[in-house]
Amino acid sequence: MNIDRYLINNTNDRILSKLDPEDTGSFRDKEEAEAKMEALKERLAELQDILFAQKEKSLLVVLQGMDSSGKDGTVKHIFSGVNPQGFTVTSFKKPSLEEAAHDFLWRVHMKTPAKGYISAFNRSHYEDVLVPRVHGGLDKEELKRRFKHIRHFEEMLTDQNTVILKLFLHISKEKQLEKIQERLQDPTKHWKFDVSDLEERKFWDDYQDAYEDVFRETSTDTAPWYWIPANRRWYRNYLALSIVVKTLEGFDLHYPKLNSPTPDISELISPRH
Amino acid sequence: MNIDRYLINNTNDRILSKLDPEDTGSFRDKEEAEAKMEALKERLAELQDILFAQKEKSLLVVLQGMDSSGKDGTVKHIFSGVNPQGFTVTSFKKPSLEEAAHDFLWRVHMKTPAKGYISAFNRSHYEDVLVPRVHGGLDKEELKRRFKHIRHFEEMLTDQNTVILKLFLHISKEKQLEKIQERLQDPTKHWKFDVSDLEERKFWDDYQDAYEDVFRETSTDTAPWYWIPANRRWYRNYLALSIVVKTLEGFDLHYPKLNSPTPDISELISPRH
Repeated sequence: MNIDRYLINNTNDRILSKLDPEDTGSFRDKEEAEAKMEALKERLAELQDILFAQKEKSLLVVLQGMDSSGKDGTVKHIFSGVNPQGFTVTSFKKPSLEEAAHDFLWRVHMKTPAKGYISAFNRSHYEDVLVPRVHGGLDKEELKRRFKHIRHFEEMLTDQNTVILKLFLHISKEKQLEKIQERLQDPTKHWKFDVSDLEERKFWDDYQDAYEDVFRETSTDTAPWYWIPANRRWYRNYLALSIVVKTLEGFDLHYPKLNSPTPDISELISPRH
Repeated sequence: MNIDRYLINNTNDRILSKLDPEDTGSFRDKEEAEAKMEALKERLAELQDILFAQKEKSLLVVLQGMDSSGKDGTVKHIFSGVNPQGFTVTSFKKPSLEEAAHDFLWRVHMKTPAKGYISAFNRSHYEDVLVPRVHGGLDKEELKRRFKHIRHFEEMLTDQNTVILKLFLHISKEKQLEKIQERLQDPTKHWKFDVSDLEERKFWDDYQDAYEDVFRETSTDTAPWYWIPANRRWYRNYLALSIVVKTLEGFDLHYPKLNSPTPDISELISPRH
């Protein structure tokens, strides 16, 4: 599939209102997408195995999106088939006192993937430009500087062999309400409900504006943003997984060769043993 | 004292051969400097106490220098009077396997000071541009990019309230030999001797060249290098301590006021108890 449609190009235009959260690409229905999911998951597992063996590059997948846009579910669905030995996921919550006492990139830098690894960030350093933009606390100049620090940080990681993939899960305001209601009605989802979600919902438009800033300031050639239409879970999962697989296929992945000439093991299996 | 003489300005010239490792400023002898050391140490302890109480800024002191230039001794002498609760020191050795699997700034970022703290780096990310310059492993373009990443990283830290002070301990080649001999002759110093020091000594000129690159590429207005003449231990300690104190005096340090009106505690000490 062609993932370029979902790439957010370096642009000064506002784009969110033009992107349809209901989009399902060329699929007619869920079944059609799900039929392809298994093969894609197997492909991801194959690619991860080589990435881990080769230990030359790493992949960082940053997931952002409004509350209830499905960040947890996306991580769960697309990475459920990978070898956990080569995979880490970090959920960034409100900073701890220790985290807040350091620069805003400190806690995320610590969790970046080592060579050979895939890491997913469920929320990230982008919260540190989104939240102060919506709720105040930093002036315009300070925000500008944070964006610059983010570009520099991601440029450094990329240069040091970490490929960064940034996925924005795009849902509609109506869909968010529907999901909040689900959480309230289903006892197995009560734990996901937080009254602050309703409070934050009042700032919907401000968050959308804040994301426009994020795309304008940080969708770079080396670390671009993709938008993922996320009203339909099945398309969200399919597309996010496809982008991860395509990205890994762009790496120069191959199993390392033996350093030394192949040892003669005939002796080990000779009849005299 | 005027520390500006020891500031390495942003310059394209080679400078090391013009700097005298025997320099002792305006002092005639050791006793004169030592008489002033105690007052300076007390001043440092006072300033650190306010820094820690205020928790707005932090200070990072990076120590670099040739083998045997006295990095350990400098840390020991200048910071022996500070409150260890607000101070950390990290010695960066050859990277571990885990460290080497990340970008070269990963392990140093993790050890940067939290607000209110002073941290000293005994060696640092500068080893990651010095060693590959001397022993190969990175081409010119890669080194250039590392320098850029260092400038960006230090700019970010500075912007996020960490002041960075970089001290280059400058000794002569003869003094190094003398110190190596001391280590061999004194049983209490044998543990400091490593046969690789003699190997590295053969690369003296290459390291001096590599430091010229470091100064040219990374002595910025916000995170400048100072050179410390280090042939005389007593002057080295006095000067390094003076620079640390002067730097802290440049912070806007004051004890935080009570947030609320002063509570009336007369009741607590009234006779009826």
